[in-house]
Amino acid sequence: MIYLDNSATTRPFDEVREIMNKVMDTDFGNPSSMHNLGVVSENYIKKSKEQIAKTLKCKESEILFTSGGTESDNMAIIGGCMANARIGKHIITTGIEHPAILETCAFMEKQGYEVTYLPVGKDGRVKIDDLKSALRKDTVIVSIMHVNNEIGSVMPLEEIGKIVKENNPATLFHVDSVQGYGKYKITPKKLGIDLLSISGHKIHGPKGVGILYIAEKTKISPIIFGGGQQKAMRSGTENVPGIAGIGLAAELIYKDFDEKINKLYELKQYFVTELLKIENVCVNGLIDDSVDIESIKMTAPHVVSASIKGIRAEVMLHTLEDRDIFVSSGSACASNKPAISATLKSIGLQQELLDSTIRFSMSVETTRDDIEKTLEVLNEVIPQLRKYSRH
Amino acid sequence: MIYLDNSATTRPFDEVREIMNKVMDTDFGNPSSMHNLGVVSENYIKKSKEQIAKTLKCKESEILFTSGGTESDNMAIIGGCMANARIGKHIITTGIEHPAILETCAFMEKQGYEVTYLPVGKDGRVKIDDLKSALRKDTVIVSIMHVNNEIGSVMPLEEIGKIVKENNPATLFHVDSVQGYGKYKITPKKLGIDLLSISGHKIHGPKGVGILYIAEKTKISPIIFGGGQQKAMRSGTENVPGIAGIGLAAELIYKDFDEKINKLYELKQYFVTELLKIENVCVNGLIDDSVDIESIKMTAPHVVSASIKGIRAEVMLHTLEDRDIFVSSGSACASNKPAISATLKSIGLQQELLDSTIRFSMSVETTRDDIEKTLEVLNEVIPQLRKYSRH
Repeated sequence: MIYLDNSATTRPFDEVREIMNKVMDTDFGNPSSMHNLGVVSENYIKKSKEQIAKTLKCKESEILFTSGGTESDNMAIIGGCMANARIGKHIITTGIEHPAILETCAFMEKQGYEVTYLPVGKDGRVKIDDLKSALRKDTVIVSIMHVNNEIGSVMPLEEIGKIVKENNPATLFHVDSVQGYGKYKITPKKLGIDLLSISGHKIHGPKGVGILYIAEKTKISPIIFGGGQQKAMRSGTENVPGIAGIGLAAELIYKDFDEKINKLYELKQYFVTELLKIENVCVNGLIDDSVDIESIKMTAPHVVSASIKGIRAEVMLHTLEDRDIFVSSGSACASNKPAISATLKSIGLQQELLDSTIRFSMSVETTRDDIEKTLEVLNEVIPQLRKYSRH
Repeated sequence: MIYLDNSATTRPFDEVREIMNKVMDTDFGNPSSMHNLGVVSENYIKKSKEQIAKTLKCKESEILFTSGGTESDNMAIIGGCMANARIGKHIITTGIEHPAILETCAFMEKQGYEVTYLPVGKDGRVKIDDLKSALRKDTVIVSIMHVNNEIGSVMPLEEIGKIVKENNPATLFHVDSVQGYGKYKITPKKLGIDLLSISGHKIHGPKGVGILYIAEKTKISPIIFGGGQQKAMRSGTENVPGIAGIGLAAELIYKDFDEKINKLYELKQYFVTELLKIENVCVNGLIDDSVDIESIKMTAPHVVSASIKGIRAEVMLHTLEDRDIFVSSGSACASNKPAISATLKSIGLQQELLDSTIRFSMSVETTRDDIEKTLEVLNEVIPQLRKYSRH
């Protein structure tokens, strides 16, 4: 099997499964219990916080565990707005965010908030001037994704953070880093980020667990109420196996990090270069259509979005599947919806290519061999499928 | 180890761990992916829904997966109120609910809702007349727990459901059954229940997953927004290992059910009877202080709350822990808070016993031997500890 759908989900590392097993088997206590089984359980949570905090160069107290990236995004927006009502009712985001942001913003609009959706260029990045024009004194939160899940474009977080804070230091800066964490070294403090969303199952960790980084002085309200776990910021018995799993996954993914990421970039450069040699195939989200390693390195290391003229994405997906290659058409997070991608439209992709776009997404476990074989199959099947589609 | 803290959390069944392992190892796809790994993954969700629906005698479409009992409770109250704003802004609950209900109600009060907290009798049950007096035409939701987590009292759900619907068929009836599901056969439809909360880790399933039963025609709004999973009622990539786990746990817990529950009741009767033979020990939440099997069967099969005069709960807990017996002082779900239990106050427990109350909670895995040994230790240490406390 060649699994190139890692932006949809990743296979948990063996070590992650093992620790989750141990927690469920022998260390199954409730962290709120006063006896030793509770203490053992709480220690897994502490350990996980340490592991995560180390990767973000932040304090352990700045880590909140949630049920996943979606809950983290919801809490950032809803909880951020609730706790900072005095600032105003204006939200800024982009038109190419994940639905976890877009749908939450739509909910906030119903609550009387005004939302500005920034456009993006052909490279899938917001323009700083657009952000500058959009910012107001009553902007309560700016939520901009780190890495786009469909085309792998990378937002200029440092610049954005600076400009947001220059306009109004009280405005919250939230980053959905579900596709960025584990691919980038992120130091929220340095980037002016107040809130950052992370998902477990995108970094070879478990499904059902995520993180919201909350900078020390950031005011935010809980959105789930109850027994007061996690300092009452997220009630509910902690998902201890999941929490132990995401901590270990984070530690493992950031081990020998530069080496892994450089290898991924080399693979991506090779993959993109070879794809562009196929007739009528374009790759989305590149910087000035360049395949120089410098330009490639301005995009995410793991995502390759390719539009293959004349072949419907669904047909291509199943053709590849028959050859044991697993890819995605558009964003698999968006629940089977066959709707046309807002991201692809936003970057100005030609109408006829919208429905002919495939996302290949790699992980640290992807090999050169995987990519070579995929290219071989593509070179074989693309002419065949085009021939059929002409009939 | 004698683990008598099953109301705090249970050890996942071996079969539950095994299926979760399989899902994480070979069947790790995202259910939203269009390729076969996605289909395999979605089938686990379907299977789990079948397993749960069978136990509740409901439709599979009435099962929603959440991150746990707390989220289920939050969604029932918040989502129920949001979707039925036309009915009014009055909520009825009891004074002895789990904090997942009480804190959510407190949040709703801040949003302009009025909440009536029904009192309970010495037996920990609401009185139907109190409910009748509290019901109004603008009561949007009545949320009453199934089984109290601290004393094991059981609410008269069928009567409550009837009266709620008689007053106004549009009023939602929500039941927090986190401590009831797996101990009782529940048919929401028969009981007039519109919404029912279930937690995975209380039934030897995984932490981090729960269920909200939503009756077919019940209107409810999502409280987490995003990719549109679960028909947009609960967005976020499904926790497939957790979902597979909770489904299997439900199936296993309801196998040979009557036999298991009868065994638990016999154990409880024996345990309570022997406890009451110890000087100055009382058992809370009994019906008319009776230990007849008929009276015992009117309380939950797994919870035994005992007040041991003159010995602080914390001292008793750690004394038992030294003998490898794990129990709880008050409700472990309420996150380490040493606060005095609202439930124990509500049933009118003497002031001097509030801080001397221990919760023993059994599961289907508890044996007669466990209880005999626990009684042996209690009979030994209670006189000793009382002697020390007199100094």
